[in-house]
Amino acid sequence: MEERPLSRSATLLIYCPDQKGVVAAVSSFLFQHEANILHADQHQDHDLKLFFMRVEWDLTDFNLSADEFRQHFTPLAERFEMDWSIAHAEHRPAMAVFVSQHLHCLVDLLFRYSIGDLNCYIPFIISNHATARELAEFYKIPFHYIPSPDGKEAAGKVAMERAQAELLAHHGVELIVLARYMQVLSPEFVRQYPQRIINVHHSFLPAFTGARPYHAAHQRGVKLIGATSHYVTEELDEGPIIEQDVARVSHRDQIPDLVRMGRDLECRVLSKAVQWHLESRILHYSGKTVVFD
Amino acid sequence: MEERPLSRSATLLIYCPDQKGVVAAVSSFLFQHEANILHADQHQDHDLKLFFMRVEWDLTDFNLSADEFRQHFTPLAERFEMDWSIAHAEHRPAMAVFVSQHLHCLVDLLFRYSIGDLNCYIPFIISNHATARELAEFYKIPFHYIPSPDGKEAAGKVAMERAQAELLAHHGVELIVLARYMQVLSPEFVRQYPQRIINVHHSFLPAFTGARPYHAAHQRGVKLIGATSHYVTEELDEGPIIEQDVARVSHRDQIPDLVRMGRDLECRVLSKAVQWHLESRILHYSGKTVVFD
Amino acid sequence: MEERPLSRSATLLIYCPDQKGVVAAVSSFLFQHEANILHADQHQDHDLKLFFMRVEWDLTDFNLSADEFRQHFTPLAERFEMDWSIAHAEHRPAMAVFVSQHLHCLVDLLFRYSIGDLNCYIPFIISNHATARELAEFYKIPFHYIPSPDGKEAAGKVAMERAQAELLAHHGVELIVLARYMQVLSPEFVRQYPQRIINVHHSFLPAFTGARPYHAAHQRGVKLIGATSHYVTEELDEGPIIEQDVARVSHRDQIPDLVRMGRDLECRVLSKAVQWHLESRILHYSGKTVVFD
Amino acid sequence: MEERPLSRSATLLIYCPDQKGVVAAVSSFLFQHEANILHADQHQDHDLKLFFMRVEWDLTDFNLSADEFRQHFTPLAERFEMDWSIAHAEHRPAMAVFVSQHLHCLVDLLFRYSIGDLNCYIPFIISNHATARELAEFYKIPFHYIPSPDGKEAAGKVAMERAQAELLAHHGVELIVLARYMQVLSPEFVRQYPQRIINVHHSFLPAFTGARPYHAAHQRGVKLIGATSHYVTEELDEGPIIEQDVARVSHRDQIPDLVRMGRDLECRVLSKAVQWHLESRILHYSGKTVVFD
Repeated sequence: MEERPLSRSATLLIYCPDQKGVVAAVSSFLFQHEANILHADQHQDHDLKLFFMRVEWDLTDFNLSADEFRQHFTPLAERFEMDWSIAHAEHRPAMAVFVSQHLHCLVDLLFRYSIGDLNCYIPFIISNHATARELAEFYKIPFHYIPSPDGKEAAGKVAMERAQAELLAHHGVELIVLARYMQVLSPEFVRQYPQRIINVHHSFLPAFTGARPYHAAHQRGVKLIGATSHYVTEELDEGPIIEQDVARVSHRDQIPDLVRMGRDLECRVLSKAVQWHLESRILHYSGKTVVFD
Repeated sequence: MEERPLSRSATLLIYCPDQKGVVAAVSSFLFQHEANILHADQHQDHDLKLFFMRVEWDLTDFNLSADEFRQHFTPLAERFEMDWSIAHAEHRPAMAVFVSQHLHCLVDLLFRYSIGDLNCYIPFIISNHATARELAEFYKIPFHYIPSPDGKEAAGKVAMERAQAELLAHHGVELIVLARYMQVLSPEFVRQYPQRIINVHHSFLPAFTGARPYHAAHQRGVKLIGATSHYVTEELDEGPIIEQDVARVSHRDQIPDLVRMGRDLECRVLSKAVQWHLESRILHYSGKTVVFD
Repeated sequence: MEERPLSRSATLLIYCPDQKGVVAAVSSFLFQHEANILHADQHQDHDLKLFFMRVEWDLTDFNLSADEFRQHFTPLAERFEMDWSIAHAEHRPAMAVFVSQHLHCLVDLLFRYSIGDLNCYIPFIISNHATARELAEFYKIPFHYIPSPDGKEAAGKVAMERAQAELLAHHGVELIVLARYMQVLSPEFVRQYPQRIINVHHSFLPAFTGARPYHAAHQRGVKLIGATSHYVTEELDEGPIIEQDVARVSHRDQIPDLVRMGRDLECRVLSKAVQWHLESRILHYSGKTVVFD
Repeated sequence: MEERPLSRSATLLIYCPDQKGVVAAVSSFLFQHEANILHADQHQDHDLKLFFMRVEWDLTDFNLSADEFRQHFTPLAERFEMDWSIAHAEHRPAMAVFVSQHLHCLVDLLFRYSIGDLNCYIPFIISNHATARELAEFYKIPFHYIPSPDGKEAAGKVAMERAQAELLAHHGVELIVLARYMQVLSPEFVRQYPQRIINVHHSFLPAFTGARPYHAAHQRGVKLIGATSHYVTEELDEGPIIEQDVARVSHRDQIPDLVRMGRDLECRVLSKAVQWHLESRILHYSGKTVVFD
């Protein structure tokens, strides 16, 4: 994560080999520089001998600028072989939303955005359909209609993704949210945004990967349907899971009922994932996530 | 289901092609014979054009004996091509419990049995280990230790199942509950008890079929773990699902935590399935169940 | 419920003293008139000796017009002392929404309305604030700003409710939804819409009635927060409960977190109550509801 | 909490005014003494300006004995005005169980105890009925039948509690679990075990305090029933809540159904509370609990 101007509060995420003294070193460093810690949480994976830490502090009395923090913290980070990032609450990262024709997740995200629940800036919405245009305009967010190519030829897909990538680059987008975007992203595209693309899949993964999961769930006769939000990786529906939820169904529920009930689940798991990502609560390793609460 | 002497209340389960007049015919029949209906529920599968009905009535004023019911109801049933069964609350079917070394589901079932929650009679418990013997004795239920054969040779397995089958036949067992019985039943055995064997699988099926589902769930990094009770069919973990439940887990939960939390889920989904089966609430078709509430 | 032109499907709700033969009489009546039953459900309250029934049928082959139905069904209804109503799916009742400054429930309802999930017609939105005007306009629904009177004097309140009542009467409103409308309705107003006003209260009733329930919940240190949708009666927060839901909270959650998490609960319990009411799934008696699924 | 011999792992619970440098001081202290931290968690109550911390470490390399820990840690604790306690995993505190006639919670706790889920030693079970005697004997735990006095005269009650208190004192009991013990403890008794008595109440507190909560819930027509585990204080049902859970009910569920479904909830919330207390996860303040996960 790039450095940002220091302000109000800052959150540090740390990931390193587990070893004695990490907490002492980090908390002493913060104390020396007058940080007033608001929340701190640690996690150890004893099997893999890894250490994870999230610490958020009030910047009011903190005596390091963003540049000074980097300068002073780097030796400590190197000593413990840390992978680290710092986020400042005042910085609102640019978040792009991709959507197709089903608008429930977009409606949900934009309302949360409008009341200040999501600490980000949405520079634009991209869609392969025009359906969301009016909604985007209502919220005064630029809307880019980039249709899917006819047929399946590679050239059209490449052009489509190039157009998307230009917009993303131009606005310095740090997070992409696929709010029921029904197109598979190419591995090349995904590689450019590692752990920066969040998708919602309308099943309880790993059950019912791929297309039409509600049909598959109905066919199997499950008693609970689910939804899953996850980071997108090159393998479809295999990325690190961020959040999952389920709803009870019965023999009375037909596929349209599952679709309707599933919409609520999808909104919930996607909005939580987005919020947690924006609050720097998520670390990922070995195909899994640590979500600090 | 075999006929039983009529008493206090009776429950009729019906399954037939969907057509006009079934409810009218059945309810008029019951009314003519002075049944006082306690609960009635219907279900239509519009895709498959099937009709399902469960009706429970007080036998106090009912003017048909069990034999007379069969005699008078059969023409009606034939007219609508019904698959039907009747159960009388006074008849407590024989239910055998199979268990291995993990006793939580057994402890749970036996306590419910002891306070009268399960409308059945448990003639014996079978196990391939001796672990459950004392518990069985505490509840004064005969315990049969039938060990698994050494190695995987077919002959031992055949002998083991023959010993089990003899006990089942001798006691007229109508329902077999696999309360964490860690042996795969042979197709020949399963075929003898169609929709009469209930198993609990420690995952949210169809995710994580097979062995060590908690390990697989931990490996995949899911945020909810589950358990599933289902009728056993010849294909492992593929039988009609009766009940499922989940519990939330986090990155803090290691495999022993999942195992511990899963125990509670397993008890819950298994005991509900057993109770519903014993209350004649379950119909099955096309690999799915209808569970009347 | 007033009679409506018969069409596609019809739903009959019945409430009467429990007695033998009701189901037989109703189902035979429907069969005689060529109804193709889609769903049927009954319930008995054995303590109070009451019978409840909901039956929905396809009107394609049904040989009675709305008027004829009333004419032919009335003798049967009188025989069993039924309180009954019939609703036709084609009739979309007028539903008014009242809202104040918190718009989450309104956003949720209007989106569901826009995609056809709610079988109703929304002639207008009333608010004592202007906050919702743009949202109403986006969905092309007339918006009436009827401010609360200054102070607490009775005259202003009376005038306010008179203005509301005129709008309701003019549009033949059959259901009023209080989507976080932060004004207490007068008993006179409520009496005009018995079981026709649905409210959402942001607690798990009967815990935390009255104002600021999230503050009270936080103060008490509960581990789950809740929301409740209910019919409005003259006694505040005492009406028949339609739906409730809860979310887990921890010591980390401060009041703003409870408010944020509660919003999702409120949307869920209110939208379900509205949908069920519009699908004629709810009967009420003795201060409780029967919700047919 | 009294000091215990240091062994395998230790858990420190801290509660003090919030101020800069607490985490740094504690983690540096532990690091200096070669502690290998297994889990650490902090919490701040910003309104009340309080700080809470739980830290668990492996004792393998730790270079302080229990006495030395106390000696060296005390100055630091005094500097930050800490209320603190340390628990060593090897020490299994004595936990007494009180029960009346409903045995489900006792069955549940004893099974968990038997498989090692509860880090405690149960020296005896006390009951005002003989119902649990056989169960206690099965688990080889001494059973003391101390009947309730006839009538309500104070003398009998005093004698009853004196008998209980002697047993508790004799065995050095540190935690009392009321596993559906249907007697109200006197304020004098409660005062002797501050935050050392855990009760389960069969409702979602603060709804339905007092006797017969399932009847009250049924009467009110709630759609979810609940159960609550809490520390016992002198005011009935007003102690700090530790855990709550709910189950969905419908109009079909009569009081015996609520009682049956409630049993599962009661087992769950009570066993979690007991486990968390024994794992030193709970701090309490202002009538609330902090439960570290």
